[in-house]
Amino acid sequence: MGPHPAVADVRRAVREAMADVPEGGLVLAACSGGADSLALAAALAFVAPRARLRGGLLTVDHQLQPGSAGRAEQVAGLAETLGLQPAEVLTVEVGREGGPEAAARDARYGALSKAADRLGAAAVLLGHTRDDQAETVLLGLARGSGPRSLSGMAAVTGRYRRPFLEIPRATTVAACRALGLVPWDDPHNADPRYTRVRVRTRVLPVLEAELGPGVAEALARTARLARDDADALDAWADRAYQDCALSDIAGSVTLAVEGLRDLPDAVRRRVLRRAAIAAGTPSGALSETHVRAVDRLITHWRGQKAVDLPGGLVAVRRYGTLIVAISPIP
Amino acid sequence: MGPHPAVADVRRAVREAMADVPEGGLVLAACSGGADSLALAAALAFVAPRARLRGGLLTVDHQLQPGSAGRAEQVAGLAETLGLQPAEVLTVEVGREGGPEAAARDARYGALSKAADRLGAAAVLLGHTRDDQAETVLLGLARGSGPRSLSGMAAVTGRYRRPFLEIPRATTVAACRALGLVPWDDPHNADPRYTRVRVRTRVLPVLEAELGPGVAEALARTARLARDDADALDAWADRAYQDCALSDIAGSVTLAVEGLRDLPDAVRRRVLRRAAIAAGTPSGALSETHVRAVDRLITHWRGQKAVDLPGGLVAVRRYGTLIVAISPIP
Repeated sequence: MGPHPAVADVRRAVREAMADVPEGGLVLAACSGGADSLALAAALAFVAPRARLRGGLLTVDHQLQPGSAGRAEQVAGLAETLGLQPAEVLTVEVGREGGPEAAARDARYGALSKAADRLGAAAVLLGHTRDDQAETVLLGLARGSGPRSLSGMAAVTGRYRRPFLEIPRATTVAACRALGLVPWDDPHNADPRYTRVRVRTRVLPVLEAELGPGVAEALARTARLARDDADALDAWADRAYQDCALSDIAGSVTLAVEGLRDLPDAVRRRVLRRAAIAAGTPSGALSETHVRAVDRLITHWRGQKAVDLPGGLVAVRRYGTLIVAISPIP
Repeated sequence: MGPHPAVADVRRAVREAMADVPEGGLVLAACSGGADSLALAAALAFVAPRARLRGGLLTVDHQLQPGSAGRAEQVAGLAETLGLQPAEVLTVEVGREGGPEAAARDARYGALSKAADRLGAAAVLLGHTRDDQAETVLLGLARGSGPRSLSGMAAVTGRYRRPFLEIPRATTVAACRALGLVPWDDPHNADPRYTRVRVRTRVLPVLEAELGPGVAEALARTARLARDDADALDAWADRAYQDCALSDIAGSVTLAVEGLRDLPDAVRRRVLRRAAIAAGTPSGALSETHVRAVDRLITHWRGQKAVDLPGGLVAVRRYGTLIVAISPIP
């Protein structure tokens, strides 16, 4: 008799995510003790030796809740029982920048990266599931900043890998149950002050009820497709930017209008966005409205005056060129 | 004192949507009598003579509800009062194909197009608002078929134009009120058997409550960006398909693997989708999973056997080519 189907699923996902790690390499699971990352750690413990790899574990103590240190020790202890080695607790100080969720995330990834460096890890596995991906897509949708914000989390970013992006959360819960592992339910995951928690507990259930049960899967599929599309368009815009940038220094970028005119809207606007950022506009402050106003200097040229951009820059059209530079342009 | 701001907004939108119609041209508003299209008709009546255009109206009697003929006559009568001419009732028989919503839509557009031809109209205006667009994006999201399904309705498709795609429904309601026009509330718009109605009445309100009041606007912005992106990628895929198609007849398409390999994933998969459809696979039956399986013949070639495709076709790799053809390939 083989393993429980949920256990087989998580193991297969972990095996595939590590397929390119060289023999003897160290792979670390980042584990909070929740069902997703506990299933991840257990799968790694099973798969790593069979793939001639070393499996280890990192657990982060954010020091934000009473008892967090003890819980982290417990996760590390369980990891050793499973055969993961090293199994380390990383204790971090969470700052305040960007709000509580962003600050905790920054502290966590900082500590994980440092530990991975120190231990010489080839890969760090993260337990994000298809449901996390669906939530991320909905959060991106609410921002409305286009396909890039719909592309969710990447399956691979540098040494980080997310083997479970196509696996439902329920599968990780079932895998833990089948393996006799008791996950820890982080109370933050039920705190409705977090937007992500409200998306999980209130928005997705309504979408599933009204649009059908395949919504999480559809959102995860949208993320994959949107990511591939955004990558392709960014590559095109890179080339187009190289082709039409006449000069490109911080504080002043000049593009040839000629080369811009025949590009599709989506590519031309990416090139203009890139030019504005290269010239010094803070990317977070640059809206679609700004980019469209600059674009009209190309597509609807009627002698408009300079377009103001965030960061004290302006875009002007002069003869056959578009200049984005610190205002005033002489 | 100028007009009410809502009235000014709808008039401006209609004026901009007709900016390229040649002097003396006939522009028709499609009007159900609901707030959106009533505001549209009133705006057209005001704007057309000032823009040296002729404004007319078409209203469709779907014969699906008791009293529909009388209501259509009333809309046409009001149009004449507003000064729209011609003002015609188009009576249609709604079939059953594709479900009640699709059948009504097919009948409606068929009648509108025929009348526009007969009357020699330069443009037909449709009253879809930003809220309709947001609903369309959510419906596309639930299908999960990627950026094209997120791109909602186009502002311009042939002679059809949608001036209100960036105008909230509430603005059209306010415009009607300010003009003393009493819109008709179609009971179908509140019938929860329609998915679109549930999106409007149950899904969007929850999204707004949990993610913030800008959701409809964000969804409409996503639609614009997704449409531009999809257009650009389709154009790239068109060129790439031309470049690598060695032969292209219904029943058998051959592509050069060489030309496919270096394309970004998003473009290569669009080319493969196009090849499958050109060879005869029904587009509605071709899933992302099919396309990915064909793609692996290019990106992960290990001597795989033929990939089955809907419509009795297969994709095989032979020497340096990819063949999509009716099975069995000799």
